[in-house]
Amino acid sequence: MDPGVRLVARPRFDLSALPSDARPGFDGSRKSGKRALRGASAELAELQERLYAAGIDGDDRAVLLVLQGMDTAGKGGIVGHVVGAVNPQGVHYTAFKKPTREELAHDFLWRVRPHVPRPGIIGVFDRSHYEDVLIGRVRALASPEEIERRYAAIDEFERELVDGGTRIVKVMLHVGFDEQERRLLHRLDRPDKYWKFNPADLDERELWPEYRQAYQIAITRTSTDYAPWHVVPADHKWYARLAVQQLLIEALQDMELGWPPPRFDVDAQRERLRSLTVR
Amino acid sequence: MDPGVRLVARPRFDLSALPSDARPGFDGSRKSGKRALRGASAELAELQERLYAAGIDGDDRAVLLVLQGMDTAGKGGIVGHVVGAVNPQGVHYTAFKKPTREELAHDFLWRVRPHVPRPGIIGVFDRSHYEDVLIGRVRALASPEEIERRYAAIDEFERELVDGGTRIVKVMLHVGFDEQERRLLHRLDRPDKYWKFNPADLDERELWPEYRQAYQIAITRTSTDYAPWHVVPADHKWYARLAVQQLLIEALQDMELGWPPPRFDVDAQRERLRSLTVR
Repeated sequence: MDPGVRLVARPRFDLSALPSDARPGFDGSRKSGKRALRGASAELAELQERLYAAGIDGDDRAVLLVLQGMDTAGKGGIVGHVVGAVNPQGVHYTAFKKPTREELAHDFLWRVRPHVPRPGIIGVFDRSHYEDVLIGRVRALASPEEIERRYAAIDEFERELVDGGTRIVKVMLHVGFDEQERRLLHRLDRPDKYWKFNPADLDERELWPEYRQAYQIAITRTSTDYAPWHVVPADHKWYARLAVQQLLIEALQDMELGWPPPRFDVDAQRERLRSLTVR
Repeated sequence: MDPGVRLVARPRFDLSALPSDARPGFDGSRKSGKRALRGASAELAELQERLYAAGIDGDDRAVLLVLQGMDTAGKGGIVGHVVGAVNPQGVHYTAFKKPTREELAHDFLWRVRPHVPRPGIIGVFDRSHYEDVLIGRVRALASPEEIERRYAAIDEFERELVDGGTRIVKVMLHVGFDEQERRLLHRLDRPDKYWKFNPADLDERELWPEYRQAYQIAITRTSTDYAPWHVVPADHKWYARLAVQQLLIEALQDMELGWPPPRFDVDAQRERLRSLTVR
């Protein structure tokens, strides 16, 4: 599959016309999809190790995966099953929850900046600065002028990151209304899932059309050449995981990461190592 | 195996008498050890999910895994192969490198405190506040009085964490002098491993007996009932990984983590969910 091309949000992108149960670019069964995910884990892990090694070597590049989606869309599953395949040493994961009072007292990007990935690291934003133009818009948590300003501020922020060497992979996990109902019911049916359920999730579900519109606007306004949005149909969890894994692999392959050359005389070091004996 | 009992550093513990190629509590082969590691990954992942769920539910408990050891002892492998089996959402990983000038201007615990795990999280310290009594002692980076003070400060700091609900699992990966030579040579023999080699590592290797003594003192001084040290023979990577995995599993089992009960009326929520239809 080549999800980078297939899933990218194009200029006349229309979220309401996109079936959430589609599997663009993948014809196989659920079983073969899961096999493909497992099969590519080692490749993703090696690419991540190369990125990490480059960071140690002074390369300033990094990757930032931005995950957005309605409740139950599968963000946690992506983190566990896709990002979980790489060494945690090279991952900086941040969940952006309801902002604290201190965070609200600052510009909306204030709490985000400290978590952009350092060189060599894959940063993962589980929700992100986009919340401030999604729930921010739907619930009118800021004035229309402020919301408007934020699209431009996001663009500038992301441009700055890209110019600094960070590859941004933005993913909206597109889950359907009916599928969300099934997933929420599942959480209410299983005692080991109650903790994932929050009654407030239903308040958000009531505003489904408003959220769809807010996503439509945000994606249209902030999908750029250098930081494009990918909209991933997410009714099939295995498909969404495979697609995001492939997006990460494509991004890393595109960075053409080799192994850093030695910054020392290999033979001289070997010599010295062999000369050291225990006292 | 029951590594908690077997590997704990007892009062008259003697590091120099402990063979680094031992495999206490495990009779099987390397192959069966690797199988056991894979086999217990799901258990560790479920225990971690219960801890995470408890955190969401307001339980203030957390786990802190402290990893110490000489270069090549296998800290990175523990992070990748043991911690890597759990959902990255629930892990806060911190590598403590050479302190910055700003960090040096503060008390040695200043840079550590912000990284203690929040409720529900497994914190991982890849090196830690112990560096300040290890390299700190060996290289005389602080006065003898200050080093002396630090043992007590560490004890107080850990006591405070434990009282706050954090379970501390301290692990020294005990690699042998000869095995370190093999591992360093390996890094010099493979172009995809050069980045892991740092000529300064040999300067530390030259001070092997001094480090052994510093570890001996640190472990003896800071192994307490509430935060005991475990010394894990680490010449066999698979054994060390299995042992640390089991230490984590024991710690989590001991916390008796159930799934949180629902904090809402399940039937009423199900009713409301079903009543919501798309507009």
